[in-house]
Amino acid sequence: MNNKFARQWKDMQAFHPYVHHLTNIVTVNDCANITLSAGGSPIMTLNPDDSEQMVGLCHALVINIGTIQEEQLLSMVRAGKEANRLHIPVVLDPVGVGASAYRKQCIEALLDQVKFTVIRGNRSEIATLTGLSSGRGVDADPNAPFDADKADQLAKSLNCVISASGPIDFVTDGVHSVEIANGHPILADVTGTGCMTASVTGCLVGTGLPALDAAVLALTAVGIAGEEAARSLVHERRLGTFRQRFFDEMSAMNEAMIAQKAKVAYASAAI
Amino acid sequence: MNNKFARQWKDMQAFHPYVHHLTNIVTVNDCANITLSAGGSPIMTLNPDDSEQMVGLCHALVINIGTIQEEQLLSMVRAGKEANRLHIPVVLDPVGVGASAYRKQCIEALLDQVKFTVIRGNRSEIATLTGLSSGRGVDADPNAPFDADKADQLAKSLNCVISASGPIDFVTDGVHSVEIANGHPILADVTGTGCMTASVTGCLVGTGLPALDAAVLALTAVGIAGEEAARSLVHERRLGTFRQRFFDEMSAMNEAMIAQKAKVAYASAAI
Amino acid sequence: MNNKFARQWKDMQAFHPYVHHLTNIVTVNDCANITLSAGGSPIMTLNPDDSEQMVGLCHALVINIGTIQEEQLLSMVRAGKEANRLHIPVVLDPVGVGASAYRKQCIEALLDQVKFTVIRGNRSEIATLTGLSSGRGVDADPNAPFDADKADQLAKSLNCVISASGPIDFVTDGVHSVEIANGHPILADVTGTGCMTASVTGCLVGTGLPALDAAVLALTAVGIAGEEAARSLVHERRLGTFRQRFFDEMSAMNEAMIAQKAKVAYASAAI
Repeated sequence: MNNKFARQWKDMQAFHPYVHHLTNIVTVNDCANITLSAGGSPIMTLNPDDSEQMVGLCHALVINIGTIQEEQLLSMVRAGKEANRLHIPVVLDPVGVGASAYRKQCIEALLDQVKFTVIRGNRSEIATLTGLSSGRGVDADPNAPFDADKADQLAKSLNCVISASGPIDFVTDGVHSVEIANGHPILADVTGTGCMTASVTGCLVGTGLPALDAAVLALTAVGIAGEEAARSLVHERRLGTFRQRFFDEMSAMNEAMIAQKAKVAYASAAI
Repeated sequence: MNNKFARQWKDMQAFHPYVHHLTNIVTVNDCANITLSAGGSPIMTLNPDDSEQMVGLCHALVINIGTIQEEQLLSMVRAGKEANRLHIPVVLDPVGVGASAYRKQCIEALLDQVKFTVIRGNRSEIATLTGLSSGRGVDADPNAPFDADKADQLAKSLNCVISASGPIDFVTDGVHSVEIANGHPILADVTGTGCMTASVTGCLVGTGLPALDAAVLALTAVGIAGEEAARSLVHERRLGTFRQRFFDEMSAMNEAMIAQKAKVAYASAAI
Repeated sequence: MNNKFARQWKDMQAFHPYVHHLTNIVTVNDCANITLSAGGSPIMTLNPDDSEQMVGLCHALVINIGTIQEEQLLSMVRAGKEANRLHIPVVLDPVGVGASAYRKQCIEALLDQVKFTVIRGNRSEIATLTGLSSGRGVDADPNAPFDADKADQLAKSLNCVISASGPIDFVTDGVHSVEIANGHPILADVTGTGCMTASVTGCLVGTGLPALDAAVLALTAVGIAGEEAARSLVHERRLGTFRQRFFDEMSAMNEAMIAQKAKVAYASAAI
């Protein structure tokens, strides 16, 4: 990769972004620690008043519906609107959106009321969103295959960047699309690597990076950290050690590592 | 141990069970990671609608009252009833049931409305339940000594398997009882090893194993992982390293390890 | 340091205090594990009835507002009043109190209704509290510099011990003040080291130690554990490994280590 791409990681660390999270109870500690490892500062709230006011102190807002409840949805809408008003970027992680009617309703309420800068999910979650946006509503097929063209269209219609993780990650702003081949299958054997990618995206987009670059660099950095941590294991499947070293690699991530290891391919979107 | 017992671990990993958790905020991340380490997939929810609908996508439901609140009790009852309707096994972890009137009321509400497949607790929690079921209600003595005969009776009266952890673990379906001598005292010095045993029980019972076998194999696997992780410590009490290696050992657990290390003794219950 | 100071750590471990936490969703698992590592037992609840009743089983109560919500505030007030009634010490961690009006309102409600034994925060949080108590209410300047004299006055007016962490930690009961020079900057790169210090303070004050000694010893032990864990890193910034070793060092902490490594300076307060 060129040096400009990698230098953005260093710029983010120099900026030291504050990233406000409205996130799930499962991986909230991981999201806080990955934000610190990347070089930012995490802030987490639950109460709606608190959530709305904290936005003004932060450089980015990350909304993750992993264990969403009624009051948290209210916090997300209020904080999201406030972020929009203040021109603070907002990242959405639509965890498990294809899995229940309730999650789809929450996502529709969020998409109706908040403008998102980046939507980051796995390919199945993004496929569900493309179904929602094409009018199939809550009956969207959770098994719908991922379709890059539909992701491009979703990015265009929502005027945001779509960041879809998978064996090959795919990022699009509707005009330009990017594929990232970094990563390792063992990342899926530890909870929260997707959520943590959203946090890192928040760090980068909060620093002022263009949303497409932020999404690509976050996936690249998390992917490289996963590769390096996996490579360091003497035995194949030692998830406790892998998890520790993933945080080690993220906290040691730097410009040179990214420049050397990134596997990023740019293209123009088909539409 | 015979090979058939140990082979069930491999069968579970081949099946890759989805385990839905309604659990506490303290160890929810540990429960997710142990489910992945064992070879299953964790799903966690809070909202009642979401909780009820997610049951249909899963192979087992784990209910843990560690930090129970009013709305979560509602989620548990609705998800538990739905699991019963769909013949999906349900594991109950009655954390701290002897410690407050509120917890006892919650457990009574759950036992009234949901049929459980396995109830997994420590000996003191199980002793409290035997008191509840004998009509002493919320005044049950939290210091009541564990009584295997009463555990047998509880299993019979609730038509479920009782899984009681302790220096020697005890499992009964009311007719057959089993003692497991695996484990290490240091397991009690890390939070969540009981909760994680419930998650692993969910993985195994969700795969279609008989409930007694599932409860015994879960205690055996967690016990062996604890022994191996403890044995690997150069210094006696290094809880950060122990915890990491416990996850390492669980994620590396296999048929051969279980066949070689299991200390399981079967007997017929006295009643 | 003298041996009497260090021996209190051993006394705490022999006593094995139960520490009840009403705390945030981000670091609740860390607080549970540090309490176990130090030698106590953690109890965590959310529901108000449960929270109030559990107090009677514990030796100390720790209240942390990191992700406070309306119902949790109610739990905190009820549990705090019950602790006061039963003469059980209460530790307050006013996380982020300077960051929002909601947090200040919560802290004012808590200070109005509950008598605290120790208030533990970082210097900026303590500076915010000194502003609140001087009548500037919710408009207190979150950027107010830390002022030891004001901390002394706050301790006097609230009749409690103020424990302020920073490059040099500062503890005062309004008459005597103490500076602790242990610690390492990397402690700020892992989430929850402040929250964990409150848990350890709870362990020590729950054992019956004078509040000033408890606050000083907790900061000293956490600081030494941080120093030792940082020193063991081959590479400078490996946060996954640092975090694991921090728990290792806390669980291996003992009288000799404290006697040898403590950097504690006593003085009389200016007022």
